[in-house]
Amino acid sequence: MRAPEAERLARVGLAQLTEPGDPRVASVVADAGAQRLYASVLAERGERSTREISEDATSRTGGRDPAGVLEDAARAGLRFVVPGDAEWPARLDDLAHAPALQQRGGPPLGLWVRGPLRLDTLGAAVALVGSRSATSYGADAAGQIAAVVARAGSPVVSGAAYGIDQAAHRGALGGGGDTVAVLACGADRIYPEASRDLLEHLARAGAVVSETMPGGAPMRIRFLSRNRIIAALAVGTVLVEAAVRSGALNTANWAGRLNRPVMGVPGPITSAPSQGVHQLVRSGAATLVTSGAEVLEIVAPAGEHVVEEPRGAVRSRDRLTSRDQQVLDAVPVQRGAGADSIARTAGIAVLSVASALHRLHGGGFVERDEDGWRLAALAQE
Amino acid sequence: MRAPEAERLARVGLAQLTEPGDPRVASVVADAGAQRLYASVLAERGERSTREISEDATSRTGGRDPAGVLEDAARAGLRFVVPGDAEWPARLDDLAHAPALQQRGGPPLGLWVRGPLRLDTLGAAVALVGSRSATSYGADAAGQIAAVVARAGSPVVSGAAYGIDQAAHRGALGGGGDTVAVLACGADRIYPEASRDLLEHLARAGAVVSETMPGGAPMRIRFLSRNRIIAALAVGTVLVEAAVRSGALNTANWAGRLNRPVMGVPGPITSAPSQGVHQLVRSGAATLVTSGAEVLEIVAPAGEHVVEEPRGAVRSRDRLTSRDQQVLDAVPVQRGAGADSIARTAGIAVLSVASALHRLHGGGFVERDEDGWRLAALAQE
Repeated sequence: MRAPEAERLARVGLAQLTEPGDPRVASVVADAGAQRLYASVLAERGERSTREISEDATSRTGGRDPAGVLEDAARAGLRFVVPGDAEWPARLDDLAHAPALQQRGGPPLGLWVRGPLRLDTLGAAVALVGSRSATSYGADAAGQIAAVVARAGSPVVSGAAYGIDQAAHRGALGGGGDTVAVLACGADRIYPEASRDLLEHLARAGAVVSETMPGGAPMRIRFLSRNRIIAALAVGTVLVEAAVRSGALNTANWAGRLNRPVMGVPGPITSAPSQGVHQLVRSGAATLVTSGAEVLEIVAPAGEHVVEEPRGAVRSRDRLTSRDQQVLDAVPVQRGAGADSIARTAGIAVLSVASALHRLHGGGFVERDEDGWRLAALAQE
Repeated sequence: MRAPEAERLARVGLAQLTEPGDPRVASVVADAGAQRLYASVLAERGERSTREISEDATSRTGGRDPAGVLEDAARAGLRFVVPGDAEWPARLDDLAHAPALQQRGGPPLGLWVRGPLRLDTLGAAVALVGSRSATSYGADAAGQIAAVVARAGSPVVSGAAYGIDQAAHRGALGGGGDTVAVLACGADRIYPEASRDLLEHLARAGAVVSETMPGGAPMRIRFLSRNRIIAALAVGTVLVEAAVRSGALNTANWAGRLNRPVMGVPGPITSAPSQGVHQLVRSGAATLVTSGAEVLEIVAPAGEHVVEEPRGAVRSRDRLTSRDQQVLDAVPVQRGAGADSIARTAGIAVLSVASALHRLHGGGFVERDEDGWRLAALAQE
């Protein structure tokens, strides 16, 4: 399935003329359709009603019409995925119902994609984002969680930034899974420079995605727009290390607006990069997660991933009869006591206690001292 | 106010004859009263109906009647606080309504107390408990939280065990506040030996408390009983580092049964002693807390302690006009752009943008390169 060419061209045209994530554009497109809006922009250029959208049309197009832009993009290895294409990830449409944030919102007109990974195969993709000034603890945690999640078949979506983002992409690749980088600049650009190898690898073996026109520069406003795409491409967002004003909190906010799970990985309370995560968990906006398995349990279809709660080393005490356990509970920790005294504490007949003590001694649970029976070291809590 | 002497003696007598925390005893005392139960135990000794409670009476009393026991205790610096005494902390009575746990439950018959701190002055006391095998991170966290809480006037209640308990008591003392140790053995005993200095200090300057008869040995069953007293003496319980089967989880469970706040201090996800805490927060049984101030906000009377959410360093960006912020948002991060290009991105007239850029340059938010204006390093997210 492929969107009609006229629709794609109209969307390229609108993308040339407008800033990514402008909720006014998304809203008119939803009402009137991209082709009618584009036709009206072209026809009424300069008129008051569409003035805000179209006034810079000429300079923004750089002299290329949409068909020419698509040709240039194709030569650079980029495709423009729009609604109606089989590759269009339907979950992006949920952005139409999420409240705007910092004057950004709505589904993108389309996504520029570089790389072989198709956006309709993201399944239970997980967004994993966090601080650019990550600690080695945070980077390790992000990498480990990403590896487990990706290995289980959930692609990892992140932003290719320094710190947690890069650790998440690399963890996913190390786990043998898929990963998607969503950029604030054009998908043909390399930013930050430190992500060059990663982005070039993803262009060959994953996907580099952007709502911004090819060649477009990274600007703060585009990071804010970009964050909503990260959250919308995934079925849940995990935050690893986000200082109190981190941009990653913006992505978590978007996941919340999309009514999708927000998860937070805790860290030491003395670590500033964990503060934002702790705040989010404390306020109830995020669920605490400590492993990839816990993330999968939350984002995967019910029953598919059920985490066994860690139960501690099963102590052999659990295999004692309940009578023997009762006796064991009554054995002193410190100074030994006679079977009669233990029998009184336990409320059990002394002969029965004596034989229980014999069994417990055989199992190494109790030991003798000059005063009688006491708990063996291994049986202590 | 002081309980009638007959009541105190009856409770001493029952405490001699029964194991601390036996919910059957608490239930009969609640129905019939301690004096009637004690009289009936003495009168019907050996009869089937009270057999379980009284059969060991003779041997347990060690030849001393309750009045003699009280005399011995007073000589050892111990008082026996019972309901009806002004010092009786009414919140212990809540144990009458909490469901039993591991066959322990109900209010204690009385508490043996050593030390000048009165149990009716505990106010918004906070229980701070955790793993005996604490990490230095956990011990530091417990000590810091205890210091803040105690300095604010909330006594810290804990169990004098190795690790978190000792760090909590010491933190409270370091904060210049009160602290109460609740023991599983008799309040006149020193256990563990490593807490000797601490317990001796508390006997002079705080309080050492136990439900167990003076001289009584520490046993596993008494730790389980003791944990409910720790939870019941405090208005909320904070858990710092508790491995998956830690006894501290038992204390947290008691706080939950008492419908009192349970709080958990997070740690690295790689740290086994934090696993039990993370599990409790994840399940919703505990609220995540990261500081003494957050603990106080939860346990203190409404409005008394309101935590200012950490807001990050206030960036001077916040002091810009909203127009200048809009312009700043449209300035490229990487390669400079002309004022006209920035004006188109921002959707603001170019002259207005030019003057904004001038102000932003003065404030160090933007800088020039050969292509135009770009974000200065300090203004980057």
